[in-house]
Formats: sequence, structure tokens, C-alpha cells
Amino acid sequence: MDAISVIRAKRDRNRLTDAQIDWVVDAYTRGEVADEQMSALAMAILLNGMDRAEIARWTAAMIASGERMDFSSLPRPTADKHSTGGVGDKITLPLAPLVAACGAAVPQLSGRGLGHTGGTLDKLESIPGWRALLSNREMLDVLRDVGSVICAAGDGLAPADRKLYALRDVTGTVESIPLIASSIMSKKIAEGTGSLVLDVKAGSGAFMKNAEDARELAATMVGLGTDHGVRTVALLTDMSTPLGLTAGNALEVRESVEVLAGGGPADVVELTLALAREMLDAAGLPDADPAKALADGSAMDHWRRMIAAQGGDPDAPLPVARDRHVVTAPASGILTGLDAYAVGVAAWRLGAGRARKEDPVQAGAGVELHAKPGAAVTAGQPLLTLHTDTPEKFGYAVEALEGAVAVAEPGTAYEPTPVVLDRIA
Amino acid sequence: MDAISVIRAKRDRNRLTDAQIDWVVDAYTRGEVADEQMSALAMAILLNGMDRAEIARWTAAMIASGERMDFSSLPRPTADKHSTGGVGDKITLPLAPLVAACGAAVPQLSGRGLGHTGGTLDKLESIPGWRALLSNREMLDVLRDVGSVICAAGDGLAPADRKLYALRDVTGTVESIPLIASSIMSKKIAEGTGSLVLDVKAGSGAFMKNAEDARELAATMVGLGTDHGVRTVALLTDMSTPLGLTAGNALEVRESVEVLAGGGPADVVELTLALAREMLDAAGLPDADPAKALADGSAMDHWRRMIAAQGGDPDAPLPVARDRHVVTAPASGILTGLDAYAVGVAAWRLGAGRARKEDPVQAGAGVELHAKPGAAVTAGQPLLTLHTDTPEKFGYAVEALEGAVAVAEPGTAYEPTPVVLDRIA
Repeated sequence: MDAISVIRAKRDRNRLTDAQIDWVVDAYTRGEVADEQMSALAMAILLNGMDRAEIARWTAAMIASGERMDFSSLPRPTADKHSTGGVGDKITLPLAPLVAACGAAVPQLSGRGLGHTGGTLDKLESIPGWRALLSNREMLDVLRDVGSVICAAGDGLAPADRKLYALRDVTGTVESIPLIASSIMSKKIAEGTGSLVLDVKAGSGAFMKNAEDARELAATMVGLGTDHGVRTVALLTDMSTPLGLTAGNALEVRESVEVLAGGGPADVVELTLALAREMLDAAGLPDADPAKALADGSAMDHWRRMIAAQGGDPDAPLPVARDRHVVTAPASGILTGLDAYAVGVAAWRLGAGRARKEDPVQAGAGVELHAKPGAAVTAGQPLLTLHTDTPEKFGYAVEALEGAVAVAEPGTAYEPTPVVLDRIA
Repeated sequence: MDAISVIRAKRDRNRLTDAQIDWVVDAYTRGEVADEQMSALAMAILLNGMDRAEIARWTAAMIASGERMDFSSLPRPTADKHSTGGVGDKITLPLAPLVAACGAAVPQLSGRGLGHTGGTLDKLESIPGWRALLSNREMLDVLRDVGSVICAAGDGLAPADRKLYALRDVTGTVESIPLIASSIMSKKIAEGTGSLVLDVKAGSGAFMKNAEDARELAATMVGLGTDHGVRTVALLTDMSTPLGLTAGNALEVRESVEVLAGGGPADVVELTLALAREMLDAAGLPDADPAKALADGSAMDHWRRMIAAQGGDPDAPLPVARDRHVVTAPASGILTGLDAYAVGVAAWRLGAGRARKEDPVQAGAGVELHAKPGAAVTAGQPLLTLHTDTPEKFGYAVEALEGAVAVAEPGTAYEPTPVVLDRIA
């Protein structure tokens, strides 16, 4: 077996054999296959595709490259959720303690943000004292004591994926459904959850810009999970406009706490409950009532215990950015569009996100929305508030918002896009 | 400008702009674009192609990465020849002194063999004392004094191509007509010849297995040469069976000397004269008579002076392999096929070629043919003699020849394949 013959096989539109996949993933992890060989193979996969059996084997080989976690000692069924990422997507924050309050164990191994979408760990790190890095022992303790934990994934899970992901990032080979699906699912399956709900987003602020690609990705991942014995279901959700009324770390924590307190924006509440119901169903707890757990304070109670268990102070005031700038409505009428990607880029430029992995993020930076599509607006009324500690970036952020706001004649009929577009099981 | 945007452009089937090509070739040569980025781009080019303007710009950028030679101070017009390589292709050896004898200057910067095709320098190095490595000064002196020189290309010509070729070799991205054409032509144009004749081979022993691919490669290279002001013409020639009666270093030198002495196999003589006439025509010497120069000994005289000028002794006995093994005809009848690729692999396994750049080659190893397609053969008569210093490889070489010999019923009509299939100008 050698790298060139594997590359040639995929280049010439052949199926990779199980032996070829096992060998190339293992040899790449060990450094026997060089980066320049794997990137050529990744480009050939991106352009020529892999079928379901190839993707399944590729995923299994990445899982086999590292350790697997085991939650079978927990007294509760485990339920995990993964989102493909979007602007204002803070759903993991209220969702994990909510599902824990309903009786499942929720191990949420999360990541940091890169580019225009925020990262769950970046958001939680705006809470004074909160720690993302836990040992496996600590993680299991929090999961056992509270029922949910949100922390950084350890280095031992699917190291082949970590190495390959970093390579794809610099070689223009990210946008491949087989590679995206196997990357996400290898980590989730290695993590050892019994059930998994995928939130696959479609729209300008999502990785998948159109619903067909998102649907294909969702179906591929559901197939992979099922093939590996994980009860997996996907919701296809809208990311044409930001989720909720905030994009930015501390701003999103505040909004999440509002949802846990029984309030919060309707779309965030709706998606949180939809995902919670899917997770509880998949975990074998179909009779649990997440709406009740939000209303009666038990979800909030789990949130406070989870934050405290990881060193955070749930009562500490959240960081606030030093400067603000208000963007007003350009005309009177019906707000018909507020582009998710533009808002994400603006929040990123304000300091909420990072351009390189080693960059710091600002806890208080971000964008606050004062209206959502469908609302009637008056010319000059505040539409967005931009928050930052680096006010020299306001101009650059406003530039990102050019063309992002659409206002139609007053009285124009507006057909709202549903939060959940489809369900794939 | 950054590598990822250039990779994405080609990945997404867009034309690369002049600025993108200039930047990526230069940045790769300088090490700013990493190997893993260039290999992903090479795979995208292999799978998605480049148009004529892109290939021309890519070639120009590779030429611009290094120095250009200048033969304008020579009193004779320069004529160069390049072959895409085949089994038993020793044509450069008689051709260069022959064309010099007819009045042109022939600077032949040549390479070593890798895989089943031999290298011109490896062949000449079987002559005791002969040196492939000349300084630019020495090269010009030989060219001025003798009229022809065959030596290794210096490191200064198209360094981008050298780096890219080594990368393509290990990443399964060799087989791309735009990349092959620009690789060959960047070196030939940087070399500074005024005219160029291409011998593009098609058949099992050639890089291009079928005539359509060979024709496309030939037309691409002729277009590139013409666009750069080099008078360029290509002959499409047959490589379904070995050229001449020998494949191997010293064996091929001996056959070349036979041709220079006015003898030698008919196909070698025919192709040598056809290429010589094209070179002399392109160099503006249409009245020269290469057949006469072979017959009257002037080509042989130039050969002896050229070998001696590079330290070789034209009278020294050539190395002979220590062991031989005869392969006989499997049946009586008409020999209708003797596969070039199989003979090339056998010669390589016997020690005439190398698997890795740093491997040595055996001067005496190779395959000698006792019959060519079209000949009547008798079961058990010697068909091939295998030569090697490592007789333990005989079995391995005979294995390569399995199925390579086709013998039809006695009396079967045999339609010979022409040596020159087509001319592309």
C-alpha cells in the first residue's frame, strides 16, 4: 500500500477500498503519509466524492485513530447535540441544562469560534471564573452530579480528524460533504454518546448556504450515526438571519439566561425546545416535558449548578463592551431581511470572533438586534447596536453590514421563514 | 492574494487570472505557498483543467522563476529536440551530432531515467570517462567547438518546475496535460533555443498510452512554443513496441553508434532522419541532407568529438553485463506484438533503470530484441536476451514479460504501425 496509489484511485473516480482507507488514515496520523499527499487526496475526494460505504469506513478509521469515551457507567441515558454553526447560535447554553433537568445526561464537547460564527466555549468563558478545560475525570464528575457538562474536547478523540481538519483549513479542501460529515461524526461517535441530535443550518450565516447541500450533509451524518449504533436525528434549521437578538459572547450568555428564566426571543425558545424534545426522544425519555422545565425554574437551576461546577459564578455581572454604535433603519416599512452572514462578520470585526486560532476574543463585543425580519420599522429608528472595546473597528463593522438590511414598502406582506425547515431521521 | 483563494478558484472550475498564476508560482518557489497547498492546487488543475491562456501564463511564470540561457552569440542557428520518453528511445544520441554535422547548433539538456523509460544521461554515462555535468561555460564551449552538446540541465533553469515536478511525483498529480506541457516547455524555452522539435510518443511504453492524449499534449506544447517565439513542431510517434533492438544503457549506445556508422535498425534510422529534417527545417537549414551526413561519416565524426569533449573515450569498450538469459518464442508464426511497456519494465528490473532518484543504474543491463513485430518466428528460437549483473532478478524480469509477446498463425497478414504517426505544427 502506498499513498500515490490511493490518491490515483480517487483521482481516477474509483471507490477506495476498506484497506486503502484504513491504511491512509492510519499512515497519515502516524506521519508516514505526508501533508502534501493527504491534501491532494482531500482535493480528489472533494471533487470526485465518496459513497456512503466509503464515508462510513473513513469515519471508522478516524475514530480508530484515538481513544473512545464510555458513558455506560452513568445512571442516565446520554443525549448529545451538534450544530453546524451559525450567527447568534447560543442554543447549547440553555439546551444542555434543560435536557439534563428532564433526566438525560448531556456531555457537550464543544469548540471555539473561527471566522464569522462564534464558539460555545468562547461564549461561556465570558462568565467570570468558568473553565472550559476539564480532565476526563472532572468531566464525568460534573456530568454525574449536574447531568450536563459543556467543555473542550480532549486531544485523545479522533486525532486523525484534528490533523486532517487543520490541513483542510489551509488547502481549500474544507467544503466537501463526505469530509465534513466524517469529521463531525468521528468526534461525536468517539465521544461515546448513545443518541445524537444534529442541528444542520442552511442560509447565508451557515456553512451550507443552500438547503439542498444542508439536507445532503444531514442525511449523510444521520446515516453515519445510525451505522455506528448511535440513535441520530437531524433538524434542518434556518440561518438566513441571526438566531435571537444577539451575536457576541457575553451578549449571547445574557440572552441564554433570559431563555432559562422563561423569557427570551421566540425563535431561540422554539429551537431550544424542538432540539430538547428530539434529544429526549432519542434518549428514550419521550414523556419528559422541556417546556415545563423552562417554566418551573428547574432548567435554570441546572444551569447555575453546571456553571458553578466548572468554576464559574452564575451571579457575577457579565462583561460589557466599552463602546457602542447604533445603526438605524434606512427607511420606513417592513424589515424583510437582516442578513446573518453580514451580522456575523460585523460581530467578528468588532472583536467577538477570531481570524486565527491563537487570537483572543473580546467578551463584550458583538451585535445586538432591535428588530427581526417581519417587524415594522421607521426610518432612523435604532436597528442594531454594535458593541466593542476597539471603537476604531466601528467603520469596518458597518462596512460588513452594507446591503444586509432590506426594508420593503409599508404594508408589504412578509412570509416568515420557519425556524425548523425539516427533520431528517 | 493568498493560496487558499487561488486553490478555491480552480477547485470551483474558474479560470485562474494572470495575477493569481504569477503570484502562486512565485510564492511557491519562494516557499511562501506550502507543498500541501500546491499539491491541492495541482490536483484541482489535473481534475478541472486549464485553458490555453492559463497554460501559457503558468509556463511564463515558471520560466520567470529562474535564469534564461542565450545562444544568440553562436554563429549557427540553434535547434533542440525533446522526446516525451519511451522504451529504447536512444534517438538523441545519433540525432544531436547528426544535426550538428548538418550545420545547426544542438544544445541538448537532458535528464536521467525514472521508472520504465531510460534516461539519455544514464545511457551516455556507460561510456568510460563521459561527464554529464558541465558548467554553462563548458557547455557553450562544446557547443561552439563541436556543434552539439548533451548534458544535465543546470539548477538555474525554471526552479519552480523542478520543485513542482518533485511534488507532483509523490502526490499522484503527474498525469495532467497542462502541467506536463508547461513543465517541458518552461525548461525548453528557458534554455533559449530558437527552434524546437517535439517527439511525442503514444503507446504502451509511452507516458501517453493513446494517440488522442498524445495529440492534445503535442498541440498544447506547439502552441506554447509558438506563443513564446520558438519555432516549434511535433511528431507524433509510435511507442507500442520498443524503438530499435535494445533497451538498456550501454546496449543503446552500441546501437546508436551503429546508426552513426550507417547501419542500425530501420525504425531508429527512420525516426532519427525524420527528426533531423524537422530540426534543420525549423533552424532555417532546409537544404541540409542528414542522410548524406550519416552515410559520409560526418555525423560519426561529430559524435566522437562530442563524446571526447565531455571526457569520454569513444573507442573504449562499452560495459557488458555479467549474466544473460534468453527468452524464446512461445510458438511458430508471425510475431504481431512485443509490448513496449513490458520490455521497459523488464529492462528496469534487470537494473537498467531506477525506482528512486538516488538509485544507481547498471551500465550493461537491459533487453536485446532478436525480432520485431512482423517477423516470422519459430517456436523455441531466441526472441529476447536479458542482460544483468544481478541474475537473481531474471525471474522478476521474465514475470514482467508475461503476455508481452503475441504470435499469430503462420501466414497471418501483418500491417506494420508507421514510426511517425502524425505531424503537428
